[in-house]
Amino acid sequence: MTTPTIAWRDGALELIDQTRLPAELVSLRLTTVPGVIDAIKRLAVRGAPAIGVAGAYGVALAAAADDPRTAPAAFGLAVAALRSARPTAVNLARMVDRVAAVARAAATDPGATDPVSRALAEAHQVWDEEREASLAMGERGADLVVDLVGRTPVRAMTICNTGGLATVERGTALAVIQTLHERGVLAEAIAMETRPLLQGARLTAWELGRMGAPHRLAVDGAGPFLLARGAADVVLIGADRVAANGDTANKVGSYSLALGAARAGVPFLVVAPESTVDGATPSGADIEIEDRGPDEVVAWGGVATAPPGTAAVNPAFDVTPVDLITALVTDRRVVRFDQGQTLT
Amino acid sequence: MTTPTIAWRDGALELIDQTRLPAELVSLRLTTVPGVIDAIKRLAVRGAPAIGVAGAYGVALAAAADDPRTAPAAFGLAVAALRSARPTAVNLARMVDRVAAVARAAATDPGATDPVSRALAEAHQVWDEEREASLAMGERGADLVVDLVGRTPVRAMTICNTGGLATVERGTALAVIQTLHERGVLAEAIAMETRPLLQGARLTAWELGRMGAPHRLAVDGAGPFLLARGAADVVLIGADRVAANGDTANKVGSYSLALGAARAGVPFLVVAPESTVDGATPSGADIEIEDRGPDEVVAWGGVATAPPGTAAVNPAFDVTPVDLITALVTDRRVVRFDQGQTLT
Repeated sequence: MTTPTIAWRDGALELIDQTRLPAELVSLRLTTVPGVIDAIKRLAVRGAPAIGVAGAYGVALAAAADDPRTAPAAFGLAVAALRSARPTAVNLARMVDRVAAVARAAATDPGATDPVSRALAEAHQVWDEEREASLAMGERGADLVVDLVGRTPVRAMTICNTGGLATVERGTALAVIQTLHERGVLAEAIAMETRPLLQGARLTAWELGRMGAPHRLAVDGAGPFLLARGAADVVLIGADRVAANGDTANKVGSYSLALGAARAGVPFLVVAPESTVDGATPSGADIEIEDRGPDEVVAWGGVATAPPGTAAVNPAFDVTPVDLITALVTDRRVVRFDQGQTLT
Repeated sequence: MTTPTIAWRDGALELIDQTRLPAELVSLRLTTVPGVIDAIKRLAVRGAPAIGVAGAYGVALAAAADDPRTAPAAFGLAVAALRSARPTAVNLARMVDRVAAVARAAATDPGATDPVSRALAEAHQVWDEEREASLAMGERGADLVVDLVGRTPVRAMTICNTGGLATVERGTALAVIQTLHERGVLAEAIAMETRPLLQGARLTAWELGRMGAPHRLAVDGAGPFLLARGAADVVLIGADRVAANGDTANKVGSYSLALGAARAGVPFLVVAPESTVDGATPSGADIEIEDRGPDEVVAWGGVATAPPGTAAVNPAFDVTPVDLITALVTDRRVVRFDQGQTLT
């Protein structure tokens, strides 16, 4: 990608302001902890891995502003504020804690390099790991797709945004599509628009255009029928959480595509980092679904779509039962549910 | 309904301008054939039955302007123009031809009342028949729903707009919901917003509000998951065309709900007038699906949702295979596909 989603450059955290897409490609240059927190809160950066990376670099900025050797209390406050910028993002807290621990260790170890350098090195390490995971998922997923479909070029359907904008550089499901494209075996990607927030229309279509991959957009309701009429050879989705039995929570609309894929005999693949697998959740039935309220449903872009006061039911994500999932592709393995393999 | 969707009043055809909903309730008063044609062309009136009724009254206006006894050529031109105001609406041509034939018969029969009165009487007859069909579907459908669900009150899910706005007074699937509500056994209706044109959000939510029925709106992608989580007891849809084997073409998104209903064990009912059954089409595979082009998908209300130039695949409707349909409810019968009944 020409402009990385998120990267450290010349002493600042640079990231694409996703709220301006697809109208404008604007990079933010963040040099302060409040700037990073604001970017996270107003969704300028979104997607669990990308938020984690932003938090990691945020700790480096915190150490530069308040040296943990001389101002440990101020450093601690900044870390706590970063950590809670998006309370539901487990990855954010995990990465902030990891980098902060390295900085604090350096502060108390006279033989260590300075805490700022150590924090920055650790944040770079987080970035590298996310990039490597993304590359691994793309390669492994593309191999599996070609194997399952049995012919090329391949037509792939996807939902929501699972590309470089949500992660670092490549993403999850969209990383597979990008890899297929780079191998010259992608005939077309069909992106579902992904109501209510239209991440497919706004972000995935933009990323596909940027990588030069042939693509078309479709409304969410058309997905299963397009599969029935043979418009795609494989469905690829990301995951918010994978339960211990393989049931997968992802953006609402995913389950509908899984039903359509199963009926049409089309492989349905979940592509997600190993960190998404949640062994503490036995099955999808144990996943509580957040309702995001009516506002996103009854209007778009400031234009009301329903009569004033219309109530809405707005589940943020849905759960696809494992029997509808052909396989899970992670940065470390492929789990073929269709062949009876399990996560543990 | 306080304001009928479409009715003859004081020498004019009055109809609700559906392009102004839900923002404003505006009735158009049409006294000329060009006025009726314009209303049909710009979708101020939509839905096959409503368009048929508009065409029927349009012929009465044509006879009043150009008496078929003294100006048969001008009358013929006006009829032809009405007939082709919406070429794909089979019902429009059928109703225009029916009323025009009555007017012409009166013109050549010295014993008949004048052609204008006869045309108007026939148009009233068309209106009455549509109203009766709507009432019959509502009653028969409500009986079946209560029977199938086995308990009250009932929670019903529907898609697109199948109410009085599409027909005369009550509609098809929404007539069933209205009848359930009037019987005091409707707990809630869940209306799918129905992208790309949002007839569910704009029109069905408005009609449900107007009839005082409890309702919530949902994005199309959420339908199957809401069914999986037990949010509705029955799914009710209308139909554009029912093939001889029972496969049903309807607004895109219907098939997705049918898949979700089948998986959840929820009854899935098609409610449509007998005239929708097309014996000349053997099965859904023989139904050609119109692609309405990208414009509806890449923008909403003048606000772009995707990058400029994004291509789209935009099937206007989809086909639900008969094995996913519990029953068809028409103005004359119930066909229980789930019990092996067939249309012929």
